[in-house]
Amino acid sequence: MSRSAKPLRSAMGWSNTDTITVRGRDLPSELLGHVNLGDMAFLEVAGRLPTKDESAVFNAVAVTLVEHGMTPSAIAARLTYLGAPESIQSAIAAGILGVGSVFVGTAEGSAQMLSASVTPETSQEEIAGIASRLVTEHRASRTPIPGIGHPVHKPIDPRVPRLFELAQQHGFRGTYCTLMEAVSAEAERQYNRVLPVNATGAVGALLCELKFDIRVARGIGAMARAVGLVGHIAEEMDTPMAAEIWARVEHEVVDFNRGDAS
Amino acid sequence: MSRSAKPLRSAMGWSNTDTITVRGRDLPSELLGHVNLGDMAFLEVAGRLPTKDESAVFNAVAVTLVEHGMTPSAIAARLTYLGAPESIQSAIAAGILGVGSVFVGTAEGSAQMLSASVTPETSQEEIAGIASRLVTEHRASRTPIPGIGHPVHKPIDPRVPRLFELAQQHGFRGTYCTLMEAVSAEAERQYNRVLPVNATGAVGALLCELKFDIRVARGIGAMARAVGLVGHIAEEMDTPMAAEIWARVEHEVVDFNRGDAS
Amino acid sequence: MSRSAKPLRSAMGWSNTDTITVRGRDLPSELLGHVNLGDMAFLEVAGRLPTKDESAVFNAVAVTLVEHGMTPSAIAARLTYLGAPESIQSAIAAGILGVGSVFVGTAEGSAQMLSASVTPETSQEEIAGIASRLVTEHRASRTPIPGIGHPVHKPIDPRVPRLFELAQQHGFRGTYCTLMEAVSAEAERQYNRVLPVNATGAVGALLCELKFDIRVARGIGAMARAVGLVGHIAEEMDTPMAAEIWARVEHEVVDFNRGDAS
Amino acid sequence: MSRSAKPLRSAMGWSNTDTITVRGRDLPSELLGHVNLGDMAFLEVAGRLPTKDESAVFNAVAVTLVEHGMTPSAIAARLTYLGAPESIQSAIAAGILGVGSVFVGTAEGSAQMLSASVTPETSQEEIAGIASRLVTEHRASRTPIPGIGHPVHKPIDPRVPRLFELAQQHGFRGTYCTLMEAVSAEAERQYNRVLPVNATGAVGALLCELKFDIRVARGIGAMARAVGLVGHIAEEMDTPMAAEIWARVEHEVVDFNRGDAS
Repeated sequence: MSRSAKPLRSAMGWSNTDTITVRGRDLPSELLGHVNLGDMAFLEVAGRLPTKDESAVFNAVAVTLVEHGMTPSAIAARLTYLGAPESIQSAIAAGILGVGSVFVGTAEGSAQMLSASVTPETSQEEIAGIASRLVTEHRASRTPIPGIGHPVHKPIDPRVPRLFELAQQHGFRGTYCTLMEAVSAEAERQYNRVLPVNATGAVGALLCELKFDIRVARGIGAMARAVGLVGHIAEEMDTPMAAEIWARVEHEVVDFNRGDAS
Repeated sequence: MSRSAKPLRSAMGWSNTDTITVRGRDLPSELLGHVNLGDMAFLEVAGRLPTKDESAVFNAVAVTLVEHGMTPSAIAARLTYLGAPESIQSAIAAGILGVGSVFVGTAEGSAQMLSASVTPETSQEEIAGIASRLVTEHRASRTPIPGIGHPVHKPIDPRVPRLFELAQQHGFRGTYCTLMEAVSAEAERQYNRVLPVNATGAVGALLCELKFDIRVARGIGAMARAVGLVGHIAEEMDTPMAAEIWARVEHEVVDFNRGDAS
Repeated sequence: MSRSAKPLRSAMGWSNTDTITVRGRDLPSELLGHVNLGDMAFLEVAGRLPTKDESAVFNAVAVTLVEHGMTPSAIAARLTYLGAPESIQSAIAAGILGVGSVFVGTAEGSAQMLSASVTPETSQEEIAGIASRLVTEHRASRTPIPGIGHPVHKPIDPRVPRLFELAQQHGFRGTYCTLMEAVSAEAERQYNRVLPVNATGAVGALLCELKFDIRVARGIGAMARAVGLVGHIAEEMDTPMAAEIWARVEHEVVDFNRGDAS
Repeated sequence: MSRSAKPLRSAMGWSNTDTITVRGRDLPSELLGHVNLGDMAFLEVAGRLPTKDESAVFNAVAVTLVEHGMTPSAIAARLTYLGAPESIQSAIAAGILGVGSVFVGTAEGSAQMLSASVTPETSQEEIAGIASRLVTEHRASRTPIPGIGHPVHKPIDPRVPRLFELAQQHGFRGTYCTLMEAVSAEAERQYNRVLPVNATGAVGALLCELKFDIRVARGIGAMARAVGLVGHIAEEMDTPMAAEIWARVEHEVVDFNRGDAS
């Protein structure tokens, strides 16, 4: 059966005998020693190097996402390492698989809400109205508003003022940040309880300010989490907890079943 | 059945109502806006922030590992995205799973060889003898020497002089770099062909110079590759190739089987 | 901080010194030698062993899902094996990650449509009306109807009559099968083209007939595909194609970029 | 750059407009309704359908590997489902990634030991000497002997006599089974403690008796475990434990760090 092949095209990276090009840049002379890992991530995703201001804000966003303590994702990575210590990459991959709709995915949710609601030119007055409408709609449909509220950090999430301060310093505190804050204020008014912008709300807003494609927001979260998971596995090598977690879970379940059977 | 529980301990990250601590540092005030993503990776794995010199060398190592063009790993990630576009994290995880013993694992191999052979105090004269012995042993057992030779980059891998130059500038061109270069020179002599230090050899040497635990070398590779995979998936969203790769492979296999059957 | 722990409960499997119980059955005496792998899957998911008729239909459903030739998922598994041959489980996992919304997920889609539309008691007359409404709705919203149409298999998908025949023989050709066929007939009428029930449509219908929870439909697909992926990796060990696929893709991309650069 | 393409070949599966062939068999007429899921796995890996006796033994082996209770792998799958409930396949993949060298990999280890030591023709007398040598060697090198000993099941693992009984009934209790039992007896003599053949030892022996390529042993384990993981995720949907495991681990770690900080 004949078919006409379509060409395969990629501008990510390629090499000659004596050159290595990544996203149009000569890796040895233009990137090594000149850019940090966060800038490299920006280059990979956006296709161009960040400005100094973009670098500062994007690195802060990425750093925010790296480490969230003993998350389900970190525990899953450690349990995987227990069974397959020969494959660190498997433990990292297992951890990344838990970065789905429930946790890091919420940054994607707030970025979607914000980018669908305003542009960089939307006026302050319009934003107030939009915030009011968004909160009313979510209340009516009884769906949680992405990017606000936190089970632990009250009355504020300490990452948020710092991220917005950095955005301000570097010229990225625009309409998306404003709308995110307006949504929080309006939600606190309508629900009559403390509902601060949370870290994923601020991250979502800043990814919009940096003009990232919303569809890669979760990818940026997964990439940052990969960094954190290497740390967890390094700690697990020296101070393991996976075997103990397993033992506790298994014993509790076995004891329960034994009780049932007797 | 009773058992005495062992405590679960971790120093990675934890939080209070108004504070978030990562590896002993206050995230908002000490990390956000102060460190880049590469520094954060160093903090996660080493348990302390890098010095300015360490930051420069480690970021260069990480940046080297991010993007290697159309690797099997990148292609696998794109094919996974084709089937599960709702789960970017799955595509990234699939790509990371190919970062095993064959490709990035070679950095681990060179780091193991180097760290098992010298210390920071080994003398120049001793290094020459060690290099000679290592090459002779690998020749005798007909096993490839990790960290040297490259199918494309000849007579040198252009990343290596740049990485070693950066190491020199920042005070990290020590005995591990020297041994890696001595092994290359000795191998070229014994095998009588061009066998330059390759990028994974330089990366392995620099991870030793930075005193990283060899066991996490592959993890650092996987983490850096996660950054690159986000780029590949972002490109796949706009300039897809996975469906075409699939179609070509399937058609060739089906055509072959049809011919067989007739 | 104190918290009241909730108990951890599971009825999957547990053991004593001299007994091993799986889903309430003694593994050595009640399962080994008595049930096949498909029955075991039924027991695991449904919590009870299948009847002989259920076993026949469920095994046919599972067997249908095992092998679909050179899918993106199979290619991704082979590429992963190329990079990490020491971890077969990684290659299988990478392949499973591509079993998402686009391919096997369509069985889930048809199961959802069917289970939301009829019960085992719905009458033939009602089914005709429901089919008409479903097609009209999908046409209006320009969304594809799950479970019908196939790019290759026309005018019929040869698996479907066989699956429905088996369902008939074993007493499982009920309202879900009827609706699936009515939807196909109605769609062919409204769209005026050949739109047969496809394999995922038949699988979705049979999972409904077997009273499986729709939410695990994709899991059953992933499990069956894991079986097929072991086959692909076994073949890849002896008749490899991953390195050649990689080489072709990389060369085409590099050649294109070189042309650009010259 | 020109290169000569090598052909891509596969005999796994392919289709025409009106036929679907898997491993040389017509799927609708020769497989659906005729083979169970275990037979299909045999066909995929071995390239031919099992005899009735092979089917009985292979299905028993696969069924043995499906469910081992609250393993690290099952817990990791449940934690992954908690974060990404939209992607059941991710939870299954995460669980499979823990099927590495430590747990299921031991079946691979015993299969390797057995297949490297005897052939189907080795005599009883020779086997006794081989068992003695194997135990002596493992003792000398202080490495664990694969396939013997169990932390819970003493003095015997109840799966083993049943598996060997089935092997006997179906004509597969050959030299590999004999050697595995001889190794256990010899180890009990030399170490002077209870060291029964365990399930992975019996599985390894039976895979040798069935003439499976040792390299796919771990793949068969991963495939069977995928079946079990679907069961765990189905249970997690209705009787969740992942959130409670997460809460317990996180609280214990946070409490510890708070105590440290005060």
